[in-house]
Amino acid sequence: MHDDLPAMDDDDLRRGRPTVHRAFDEATAILAGDALQTLAFEFIAGPATHPDGGIRSALVSQLAKAAGMAGMAGGQMLDIEADGNIERMQSLKTGALFRFACESGAILGGADPAPLRQYAEHIGLAFQIADDILDVESTPETLGKATRKDAGRGKVTFVERLGLEGAKEKANDLVVEAISALDVYGPTAASLRDAARYVVSRRK
Amino acid sequence: MHDDLPAMDDDDLRRGRPTVHRAFDEATAILAGDALQTLAFEFIAGPATHPDGGIRSALVSQLAKAAGMAGMAGGQMLDIEADGNIERMQSLKTGALFRFACESGAILGGADPAPLRQYAEHIGLAFQIADDILDVESTPETLGKATRKDAGRGKVTFVERLGLEGAKEKANDLVVEAISALDVYGPTAASLRDAARYVVSRRK
Repeated sequence: MHDDLPAMDDDDLRRGRPTVHRAFDEATAILAGDALQTLAFEFIAGPATHPDGGIRSALVSQLAKAAGMAGMAGGQMLDIEADGNIERMQSLKTGALFRFACESGAILGGADPAPLRQYAEHIGLAFQIADDILDVESTPETLGKATRKDAGRGKVTFVERLGLEGAKEKANDLVVEAISALDVYGPTAASLRDAARYVVSRRK
Repeated sequence: MHDDLPAMDDDDLRRGRPTVHRAFDEATAILAGDALQTLAFEFIAGPATHPDGGIRSALVSQLAKAAGMAGMAGGQMLDIEADGNIERMQSLKTGALFRFACESGAILGGADPAPLRQYAEHIGLAFQIADDILDVESTPETLGKATRKDAGRGKVTFVERLGLEGAKEKANDLVVEAISALDVYGPTAASLRDAARYVVSRRK
């Protein structure tokens, strides 16, 4: 909701429907985003998440880091500044939440988070590259949002950096690396392997 | 930062200095607000807050409720809608964070939160009434922000509802009630009594 606002990406559509500030107004989009962010913390901190309060607190700490200055919000700031370091921007803006989503499973299960962290880093970057590819190859009808906006705003993208074929190759390589990070889990990680493949095969 | 934005209260000054969106820009104010909100959760969930993870999680839950839809963000929405129910609006917008600030002490110390909750409700409402009084009696120089903005926007205030003298009387009554909620603590609550008196004696 916040990054769609006029002061940021100024997007009118999200998943084929009007963005919150278009359907309502800017104040509503700002406050609804604020309220939903707190709701995530309320949900995670609640007893239904895990019986051990220490584990719940660890999840809160990790989500807070992933969403804040060293994560999503900081990455969005770099995106707006368009400083050209797109690997670092991506690692913060979307990568941090991918890492949290994966690591939180290890935290909840008391397992080593390292393999899931590696997996998340690879699919996070593959996801962003796939996003840049869809931005030039897809249509607003299929994608459910405006396309070719990045070029119009002078933003560096992975497609521009690597070329279209180079970007596809890089995304596919990352999926292979993500899947090999799961070797330690054997056949139990099948759904994570499917998710990694989906990141580059999705059409929207 | 968020409620000063042009889409909401559109304030240029806060504590005598330019608001964040004036000193920088709107995107920075939105993202800095988002990042600071997560920082509060990161801080509270960290081990320095309390050795017991269950207590840290309880604090996170309470802060999330106080800041979200059933608290600050929801109250700000009511404020924007100017629906006229200023008691309910105040109870959510500023009251919820006053209650959390006070109750968190009881949660950390394993004490009954009821007296502190009562204290907080009274000083929270007194604070808002004092704010409305300062808005008509003070100057931008003393207050560090624009005055008489509420009337210009057709917002109902406690001064308008109760008259200036009625508002002062109500605020003073609430301070007396807040102080009597502290009786159970005896002389150890002296600083809380001072804080309650400050709420109505402050000049900015």
